Formats: sequence, structure tokens, C-alpha cells
Amino acid sequence: MKTIVPGEISVRELHGYLLSAVAPRPIAFASTIDESGSPNLAPFSYFNVFSANPPIAVFSPARRGRDNTSKHTYENVKVVPEVVINIVDYAMVHQCSLASTDYPKGVSEFEKAGLTPVASDLVKPFRVKESPVQFECKVNEVVELGDGGGAGNLVICEVVKIHIADHVLTKDGKIDPLKIDLVGRCGGDFYTRSHDGLFEVPKPLQKLGIGIDSIPEDIRRSKVLSGNHLARLGGVEELPNETDVNEYKLIELADLFVTYEDQPAELEQKLHEMAAGMIDADKITEAWKALLTFNNG
Amino acid sequence: MKTIVPGEISVRELHGYLLSAVAPRPIAFASTIDESGSPNLAPFSYFNVFSANPPIAVFSPARRGRDNTSKHTYENVKVVPEVVINIVDYAMVHQCSLASTDYPKGVSEFEKAGLTPVASDLVKPFRVKESPVQFECKVNEVVELGDGGGAGNLVICEVVKIHIADHVLTKDGKIDPLKIDLVGRCGGDFYTRSHDGLFEVPKPLQKLGIGIDSIPEDIRRSKVLSGNHLARLGGVEELPNETDVNEYKLIELADLFVTYEDQPAELEQKLHEMAAGMIDADKITEAWKALLTFNNG
Repeated sequence: MKTIVPGEISVRELHGYLLSAVAPRPIAFASTIDESGSPNLAPFSYFNVFSANPPIAVFSPARRGRDNTSKHTYENVKVVPEVVINIVDYAMVHQCSLASTDYPKGVSEFEKAGLTPVASDLVKPFRVKESPVQFECKVNEVVELGDGGGAGNLVICEVVKIHIADHVLTKDGKIDPLKIDLVGRCGGDFYTRSHDGLFEVPKPLQKLGIGIDSIPEDIRRSKVLSGNHLARLGGVEELPNETDVNEYKLIELADLFVTYEDQPAELEQKLHEMAAGMIDADKITEAWKALLTFNNG
Repeated sequence: MKTIVPGEISVRELHGYLLSAVAPRPIAFASTIDESGSPNLAPFSYFNVFSANPPIAVFSPARRGRDNTSKHTYENVKVVPEVVINIVDYAMVHQCSLASTDYPKGVSEFEKAGLTPVASDLVKPFRVKESPVQFECKVNEVVELGDGGGAGNLVICEVVKIHIADHVLTKDGKIDPLKIDLVGRCGGDFYTRSHDGLFEVPKPLQKLGIGIDSIPEDIRRSKVLSGNHLARLGGVEELPNETDVNEYKLIELADLFVTYEDQPAELEQKLHEMAAGMIDADKITEAWKALLTFNNG
């Protein structure tokens, strides 16, 4: 493994490692205003939600690495502690990127990026009409993490009103992960389009899964089953009983057991391959039955 | 648009909206120990990096919504203010999910999830051997955001050492976004595999792009070009000059201009469609030339 000690490499290099390892990052397209009311719009991927009660999001307009200056967004929230966090979808990702340009103070990124400002209900900064979800926020606190180039500033925001575009909603009014076309930031110039990589992992049982440590040794040491396969097996609350396993063996696997009657290693290999396929198809109980036939009876 | 005011819906519902809108979220697989040295391992997607100088990551083990209890991770960092944040890749996502189960205090999620504890160099909690990037961290501060169910707790962590698996590195020792197989959390039971949705957006010029507001009106109002197309056009520092545009028209588009000599609307449509394709192929200068031929000469 490569090891890195911060302080022994440049901030710029360290920044690169942090951003390519901690990913994909959601993007806050932050709309603020300065003391004269001029709007600013800039994207930040030092961003996430951290609490539902109260509803708190945090983003960080960090000090610039190259000249240790602060960003307009940071300056704005210090004088007008309000922000609209607009969520970025694939249809606006290039406009968002263009708005990240360091235009001089007073230049509106809404105009430069061709986005439409819409008045908010409870805060002064504008919402971005094109954004699928817009969070009107009050800034509770700004925590400066340092005073050198690359130092972050935690802008701790309380969500006071949420606007959600109809086209991303399910029939019962929830946000549909299959409809909202979100993008996240990865390392370098990379983004990821969530939609293309979506997959589901059922939440573990409220009742406790047996754990990988409770899986019989011969299965746990399988050369076929991956850590992900074992985790699915370890997520069940209890194993199928001996009667069910015997029945499965007699009805479903009789031919297999005859074929490999004198080749136990090959039989075990076949059973594990079969189980791997069943787990991939979410048939966990069936996989357990197949695996348990090997030492059963 | 649907609007939501926090406080007018349940914390549980609000939580659902926040998690499905603020996505994809990176995952901190946090390894901590209690006062007696028993290890704990749990995943948190209320997580991100926020600063490179000092290197600061923040995650939030929130109070449980259902019974307002606190999590072992929170309790552990209050007594032993150290944590290893392990990054989660696709190969271990089910093991990570299994470790999110609420096993009783004293039960090791390393064992339950079949993961391998490795001693850290500068902190007491273990690293997860299977994780492609492991951040050894000191906890600078824990900020409680509330005391009700669903309240977040910002665990502000300073990275003191980073371990990176060789298989995710480029030849020159950087993390390769194409090799590291990261997963992020989305709404509901959804995750996203970054790799499947990766795309590049070249960073905007240090020199300022002209902006969408400087694009000639007839192009900006195009029915063919999307906001993303216009943003790419607005990202250039200057437009091709009249001579280049005329030359392009004579050499590349002579036939097109003859074909549509008396059909200006159709000609414009064709030029915009052509430009859209060029932009999608990253040929921005060529797209500009094609578009500017329409009112040129």
C-alpha cells in the first residue's frame, strides 16, 4: 500500500488524493447575494446533508489554494447569512461548471451560465429555476477550519423550505431515484451520472443477521463465494432447517449428487457456483439450502 | 412544484426527501473503539471531505429517528476521539451494509461482516484491510446539532495518515478514478456505482469564458441547442473571427448553403443540429464556426 502523511506532500497534491478517494460527492449549487443585493451562484462538492432534525446541510467554500483568497460565496454568507442550495442534474451540469468560473464580483453567474433566477419565499437569494430540488436555507454558523490556502469553511445551513420539480416525483409525492437524474463529483475532471450506476441493496433486517462469523467454516472459506456473497448469506436471521435442506437435496439436486457421487471436491465447487448465481439473483434462502446439502445427511 | 416546510411533515418523511435529493453521497465506513478497546465499524453517508489544509473530513452518526438513542460510533468518539474512515468500493458494499446492523455493544462488526482489522499507525482504531483507501483521523470536535430523534452530530476529523491500495493507483502514484470502484448512497435502498456513470467535464478556463449571455440572440434562443450545449459555447474565451467563419462556410458548408438557398429556417435548423453534434464530440470551435455562418456574409 502507498501511505501519505499530510504535511509531507503539497496541499495541492493532498487535495487531489482527498477528492479522488472521497467520491462520489453531491453538488451544492449555492445561490447567495452580497450586501448590495447582487446575486452569486457557484458549485461546491464539499457538501452534504448531516441531520434531519433540525434539517442541516453543510458546504465549504474553501480558501483558494493558488493565492489564499476567499470566494464570493463565503464573503456573501458572512454579510447575508442565507443561501439557496440548488441540486444539480445531468441536464445542467455544463452550466454548473461554467458558473464555477471566477467571474469578478458583481457579475451574475445566472446570466453567464444562462440560468433563470426565481424569487425565494423565505430568504433573499434566488433559486435556480432549472434545478430539480431547491433548498432555501438560513446560515446558522460559519466555521473557519484554517487560514491558509486550501482551508475549508463549514457553512452550516438550516433548511427552511424545499421546492421539488414535479417531474422527479413518484405518484405519491416522493422523490424517485429513477427519475431524478443527479450528478456527483469524482476525482480530476470526472463526474458520475448516478442513474447509470444505480443498484439496490435491501436494508439489513431490524432483527439481527447471523453474521459472516456464524457461517459454517467450509462455506466461509469458499473459493467461489465473494465477500459480497457471504454478506448476503450472513444477513439472514436463521438457517433453513435440516428437513428443508434434505427435501431440497432430494427434489432439486438428486441428479447432481448422483453425477458427482465420488468427486466431493467437484461437487462442492458446483454447489458453490450454483449458490453464487442464486445470491446474485437475490434467492438467498435457496442458496443456503444448496450450500447446506453438502454436509447434510 | 411541490413545496415542503420542515416541521409540517414528520422527521422520517423529511429525512427521506433529504436523502433522495442530496445524492450521490460518499460513504465513510467508520472504525472506532470504546473505552475497553472493543472495535466498532459502521457506515455513514452523512459524510464528506471539507478542507485540504488542514485535511478535514466530517461525518455524522445521527440520533436514531425511531427511539432517539445514540449510535455506538458517536459514543466511542466521545471517549476515544480517533477514527479510521475507510472508503467503500463495490466489492465490499454488501459487507458494509451488513455492518450497518445494530448489533449489541461489544459485538465486532469486523467479525459479523467478515472484514479484516489491521492495526493503524497513528490512531488506536483498526483499519479495514479490504478498503481501497483508509484515512487515519484524530477527532478535533463533535458538534451536536440537536437532541431529538434524527439530530445529527458533526464529527470533525483531521486526517493524519492515508493508506491507498496499489491496485487503484496510476503509474505515477495518483488515485485513478477509472480503477477505484467507488459506490455512493442515493435515496431509498439505492446505491450508485460511480464507475458506470463516469464522464468528464473539462474544468472551465482560468481565463474567463464569454458566458451564455454573450452568445448571439439567435443562437441562444435555439430550439435545438440545450442548456449544456450553450454552456459549452459560452465557455470559450473568444469567438472565431469573420475570416475563419467565411472560410469554413466556403470550404465545408458550400453544398448545404446551396441546398437550402431559399429556406432560411430549414438552413438554420440544419446548422444548429450540426453544431449540437459537434459540441457533443467536444469540437467547440468548429460548432461556433458552423453556427456563425448563418448570419455571416
